[in-house]
Amino acid sequence: MGTTRQECVALDQSDGLAALRQRFMLPEGVIYLDGNSLGPMPRQVPARLRHVVENEWGEGLIRSWNDAGWIDAPRRAAARIARIVGAGADEVTVADSTSVNLFKLLVAAARLRPGRNVLLSASGDFPTDRYIADSVAEILGLRTICAGPEPDAIIAALDEHVAVLALCHVDYRTGRLNPMSRLTAAAHAAGALALWDVSHSAGVIDIGLDAADVDFAVGCGYKYLNGGPGAPAFGYVARRHHQLVRQPLTGWLGHAQPFAFANDYVPAAGIDRLQCGTPPIMSLLALEAALEAFDGVDLTALRRKSQALGDLFIRLIDDELGPCGFGLASPRDSDVRGSQVSLAHPRAYAVMQALIARGIIGDFRAPDILRFGIAPMYVRFADMFDATAAIAGIMAAGEWNQSRFLSPKAVT
Amino acid sequence: MGTTRQECVALDQSDGLAALRQRFMLPEGVIYLDGNSLGPMPRQVPARLRHVVENEWGEGLIRSWNDAGWIDAPRRAAARIARIVGAGADEVTVADSTSVNLFKLLVAAARLRPGRNVLLSASGDFPTDRYIADSVAEILGLRTICAGPEPDAIIAALDEHVAVLALCHVDYRTGRLNPMSRLTAAAHAAGALALWDVSHSAGVIDIGLDAADVDFAVGCGYKYLNGGPGAPAFGYVARRHHQLVRQPLTGWLGHAQPFAFANDYVPAAGIDRLQCGTPPIMSLLALEAALEAFDGVDLTALRRKSQALGDLFIRLIDDELGPCGFGLASPRDSDVRGSQVSLAHPRAYAVMQALIARGIIGDFRAPDILRFGIAPMYVRFADMFDATAAIAGIMAAGEWNQSRFLSPKAVT
Repeated sequence: MGTTRQECVALDQSDGLAALRQRFMLPEGVIYLDGNSLGPMPRQVPARLRHVVENEWGEGLIRSWNDAGWIDAPRRAAARIARIVGAGADEVTVADSTSVNLFKLLVAAARLRPGRNVLLSASGDFPTDRYIADSVAEILGLRTICAGPEPDAIIAALDEHVAVLALCHVDYRTGRLNPMSRLTAAAHAAGALALWDVSHSAGVIDIGLDAADVDFAVGCGYKYLNGGPGAPAFGYVARRHHQLVRQPLTGWLGHAQPFAFANDYVPAAGIDRLQCGTPPIMSLLALEAALEAFDGVDLTALRRKSQALGDLFIRLIDDELGPCGFGLASPRDSDVRGSQVSLAHPRAYAVMQALIARGIIGDFRAPDILRFGIAPMYVRFADMFDATAAIAGIMAAGEWNQSRFLSPKAVT
Repeated sequence: MGTTRQECVALDQSDGLAALRQRFMLPEGVIYLDGNSLGPMPRQVPARLRHVVENEWGEGLIRSWNDAGWIDAPRRAAARIARIVGAGADEVTVADSTSVNLFKLLVAAARLRPGRNVLLSASGDFPTDRYIADSVAEILGLRTICAGPEPDAIIAALDEHVAVLALCHVDYRTGRLNPMSRLTAAAHAAGALALWDVSHSAGVIDIGLDAADVDFAVGCGYKYLNGGPGAPAFGYVARRHHQLVRQPLTGWLGHAQPFAFANDYVPAAGIDRLQCGTPPIMSLLALEAALEAFDGVDLTALRRKSQALGDLFIRLIDDELGPCGFGLASPRDSDVRGSQVSLAHPRAYAVMQALIARGIIGDFRAPDILRFGIAPMYVRFADMFDATAAIAGIMAAGEWNQSRFLSPKAVT
């Protein structure tokens, strides 16, 4: 006999983190398993943003750069993210998009390893990471090598030509989690620098960038950090590199004295030199407000709950969906699985559309992946049961075969 | 006898554009002459943004990328800007910051002129433009030359080594307006490409990028376009370059098929290849809503009003402030003056602080410039009188000498 709904509800009742769900506005009738694509809205955002628009911009106008503290907003948001990713507040800044920050830091990292001509990444990395690495390689006269995705294969490719090892912490399709400390140590042993994209782990895994001795990192503000659509991204530079790091997007806000409007660029001390142009204040202040949802939250406890949710989901799928042709595309071992469970199915697109029509929102990744993001701040154990039951219902009724679910269109 | 306030009020009463002021929320008791730094809030923005946050993000969640049309927002905002700057809707996109777009387009332009090794700019360009040009030169192995600022001196520096002539349309300090058609033609005659930063002219001057045969342009969303603090910027690529242009920030959103998550980067057709990462939706949709303030507005009429306002302001200053030591730092001839009037004064910082304390908001640029942005959509002829009278009052009372106005701090 499989796990019952009642047993799942009991798990929620004894869950010490269950109250965190109240920090979010979640629509009625929706089970939201797409926080790895766009996190839901933390409760304090609407009032904060109303104030920003009507009072700070509308009334304060230009004066709000100082009087409302807009100018310090990147630092304030960064300090909150720093705690979440295990870094010092002086090692993180918020700016631009993940892709733009990746460009900055790949160039900066390569400049610290002159004479080495390889940017090493792994298959399974998010495509934008590979596109940016290819572009950096072209512009600096380097080449990219793609190894892996297994850690041993990546380590085998580390040699004296590698300037930078650039990896995604979590495979966005399968949810496979890379061993950050081990791969970073291997990069260092080969004389290379390690750059991690933690877009799919920040906010759900106790990352510990400092503890893992990482050199550089980038990450996304709108996935598990719930900062709102297209929220600004963040960049991390280990303190030991602060004096030497030189990034190429030398906009005025990264200048040592931005308001002196000097003719020559002098980079700001420390992490502020990662800034480029004026940040999008509405989106940035929404992110800052959203990060309050993490106040007092222990990332280790979040990670444990995420693992328990994923393990339960996989057990339910095993029990209930056995004959329906679903394959587990994620690692079964939660220690090497990020905060998502992916299933492979030949009808993945239509099944996901049918699920969304029932208010259970995950997403589809071509060609055949159903992706379920498991955000432990608001996903319940009973949600795992209900999602599995819905999939079983869709398969039993042949619902995925309805014409309205069959034609793919753009989804993010 | 000088111009009276009554005469100024009469000018407002006969001004065919006076009603446009109602499209903005302007705080009581403020005369806002800093729209060249941060435009005020168009009336429709708060309701739009409330809907975006509470309904589109809060309720729609990830589905809003399609259902609420977020994915097309850069194109929609770009189409509105295109009309304002005299371009085709397919030649403009909205993305990132001005500095980031400048990096993209300087690299892209230089790649179209292989074998030429000079990026030519002008003294008086906005500092960030020079910093970015220096960085692009370093990364591509080129060099920067700074000529001018007079057009004849810039033209004299155009030779067969120049790959790109990159200029600001309006000098951010003095308001001097560069002759766009003439300098673009000179660049082309020398075999170079012309890139213009129209941050300080978009929304107040009938720019006509297509008519001037410009190759590339960038511009700011939050100055005279009133898009809100740190609003996304825009980029322009003349249609004739669309097939060949290759920019280096090859993020996933500029891919021909962003949602295919392919391993290799294939640039989108046309202007969309200027996109990089996910745009900051709250800031982007605020900009889109703000641009509705330009609905039905004739840029040529706006420009005429801007010139008339500036001419009046200069006349009033001549009449009223003669003995107070102010120098006109802007061109007297409105045909070579952008939409601002700058005054030089040894006590510029303190005088501006005293003005701001009286609710007349301009800004200060080191070392000695008082800058007044004249946005013809909401600035009135009587405002020019009241601002002049306030300066005269401050000087007569020695108000600038009060200690609270004397210590410089960061201003944007």
